[in-house]
Amino acid sequence: MERLDLLARIGAVGADGGITRPGLSTAEDEAHALVAGWCEEAGMAVSRDRAGNLYARPSGSEAAAEIWSGSHLDTVPSGGRFDGALGVVAAIEAVAEVAADRPGAPLAVVVFRDEEGWRFGDGCFGSRCLAGQVGAEDLARRDSAGVSVAEALAALGLAGPPVEVALPAAYIEAHIEQGPILASAGAAVGDVAGIVGIAGFDLTFHGASGHAGTVPMADRNDAFSACAELALRLRERALEIPGSVATIGDVSVASPAANVIPGAVRATVDVRAPSREALDAIVAAVPALASYAADRHGCSVDATRGWRSEPLELSGRVRDAVRAAAAGLAVPIAELVSGAGHDAGVLADAGVDAGMLFVRSLNGGASHRPDELSDEADVAAAIAVLAETLRSLL
Amino acid sequence: MERLDLLARIGAVGADGGITRPGLSTAEDEAHALVAGWCEEAGMAVSRDRAGNLYARPSGSEAAAEIWSGSHLDTVPSGGRFDGALGVVAAIEAVAEVAADRPGAPLAVVVFRDEEGWRFGDGCFGSRCLAGQVGAEDLARRDSAGVSVAEALAALGLAGPPVEVALPAAYIEAHIEQGPILASAGAAVGDVAGIVGIAGFDLTFHGASGHAGTVPMADRNDAFSACAELALRLRERALEIPGSVATIGDVSVASPAANVIPGAVRATVDVRAPSREALDAIVAAVPALASYAADRHGCSVDATRGWRSEPLELSGRVRDAVRAAAAGLAVPIAELVSGAGHDAGVLADAGVDAGMLFVRSLNGGASHRPDELSDEADVAAAIAVLAETLRSLL
Repeated sequence: MERLDLLARIGAVGADGGITRPGLSTAEDEAHALVAGWCEEAGMAVSRDRAGNLYARPSGSEAAAEIWSGSHLDTVPSGGRFDGALGVVAAIEAVAEVAADRPGAPLAVVVFRDEEGWRFGDGCFGSRCLAGQVGAEDLARRDSAGVSVAEALAALGLAGPPVEVALPAAYIEAHIEQGPILASAGAAVGDVAGIVGIAGFDLTFHGASGHAGTVPMADRNDAFSACAELALRLRERALEIPGSVATIGDVSVASPAANVIPGAVRATVDVRAPSREALDAIVAAVPALASYAADRHGCSVDATRGWRSEPLELSGRVRDAVRAAAAGLAVPIAELVSGAGHDAGVLADAGVDAGMLFVRSLNGGASHRPDELSDEADVAAAIAVLAETLRSLL
Repeated sequence: MERLDLLARIGAVGADGGITRPGLSTAEDEAHALVAGWCEEAGMAVSRDRAGNLYARPSGSEAAAEIWSGSHLDTVPSGGRFDGALGVVAAIEAVAEVAADRPGAPLAVVVFRDEEGWRFGDGCFGSRCLAGQVGAEDLARRDSAGVSVAEALAALGLAGPPVEVALPAAYIEAHIEQGPILASAGAAVGDVAGIVGIAGFDLTFHGASGHAGTVPMADRNDAFSACAELALRLRERALEIPGSVATIGDVSVASPAANVIPGAVRATVDVRAPSREALDAIVAAVPALASYAADRHGCSVDATRGWRSEPLELSGRVRDAVRAAAAGLAVPIAELVSGAGHDAGVLADAGVDAGMLFVRSLNGGASHRPDELSDEADVAAAIAVLAETLRSLL
């Protein structure tokens, strides 16, 4: 908890405890340096790859069929102190503890770069470099200040991909849950079955702008009414499809004015689901309900489908180890699916036996906010389960 | 029509024919100068008051119990060529024609300043100066560039209110309809019974922001869902109350992001109705439905009520004269209520026998847009009705 407090000082913004450590920034780099020092104090040898990912290996550890644990140290803007940092700090504790008992065991702490992805518009940069998924197009992405990924890497003295580091045999990432499920279930930790599939849409409703006073209600083609109709219908549909969620997070009215009927409205739609069938169903609902809503309000709609990532199962071997560890330690555990992407998903997709261990989130599951919180008892329980899981995987 | 084309060159913006002549700007002043020249060519004596309102009186006209006709020359941003300008050009034609037959008749063309009101946030500036309704607070209002009303007046060489000009006995303003009603009714001109009452609200829905992937649908407090619920319910309510309209024209999500559940949403609501009973009913619906919508989506709402203007009846004397003139000329006429405020409403409220004559709008009643349109035959019919109305009022 003290280490989380120390990390929280790096990139601290505002009076509310918020932290902003963008991926590939000097703030993220400073956090890596602080963590590297802790790992060295714990007797580990620290190295970094061409993407800036950090590896800390207990002295004398074997190099083959490694088992890694870690997470990331970048944050969203004005984020909390647990997302990412908790998994790094927990990994140092657990790896050091297990290595003390088992000299030479092939363990490593790993810290990935730019997991959040908001700065350059694409997440899991460090793990994707490791998996060989980052190309010239990714390196040319620019942040809002016009700095490219390649330039940000160079400013930190990093050559950038290709990264030639062997993938581990297994990876286990502890992470604060980013929602309220474990708290509802009364579980300190979570057995993460998989990562939801995600699809995004950009919609534009086109109606007819007009004077707010002079066009009778029945003659209107109000683009905001169409967008509102979609919002409510899509919510109902998501409630019907188990495990699926749908979010309209960014809405803007073209030429907004209190006395003008909206002629065009742009909206983003983010849908997620734990199975391919459920994702297919909620994805299909978006253009269908958008067309229905547009028709009903005398509008038309353009729906552009963005990225789609498929639902992913995490490693059964890791999940078995996690559940057995929790049972052995009498730590209450519940199964859930992660609604957000993680580096563990990238490694799983690349063939690693990758899994996750969630830690109960208080404050209603607040995530990406300064009031994000796990309590000390749950963190201690998670570290114990993590250490036991590493022993089991070894 | 040629004069409307000439006026449209002043403040022309973009390739779509849009015109931007802000109130109390040099563009509005230039339009006043052009119109002053036409009035002088027609043998009228031009003067202006301390607010910049223009008066043009046929030579030798009597000063008592005057009958005025006119409108305004400012436009909304990227507005059309008819709103305001049509009533000015028509008044010059009609007043000149009647004065030629009736030397000494107490007639005047009047052009009011800053009717649209968007620049400084409050409309009908010129007529309100005349009615003694403009005080220090109004003069201190600033536009988006930080220029105050007082500074804008000074830059045009105007002293500003108080304006000491005697109110006329009657006022008749020709204006393009800003909606589709006359076109639907097959009428070239409109007998305007009154001006709707208007009330405005600023609403803020407060929910809980959260990660789009990790908060189950049933656990959400989505402020945008609440706003959408209000939009649809308020639309239904307005459809039930005859003549009422409700518009959500400006909506903004706090910290919008595709993958974040909206934690707060701000929305404006503009409601209008032709009678006090109907206005009371739609006004009462806004906070009631907003609370219902907030409750239904686990949110709260702050509703701030802004201005309210009561429905206004226009002069029966003027309306009788307009209907008789149309009947005499066999011009098809229909009764309607103005959904927008006008200088005629300010004068009616100040006790003047004030009325309006609407001219059919094509293109679906497009208003405040470059494609705003009345055709030449309807404009000619309106000028004939206007002249006949002036004769009748004399």
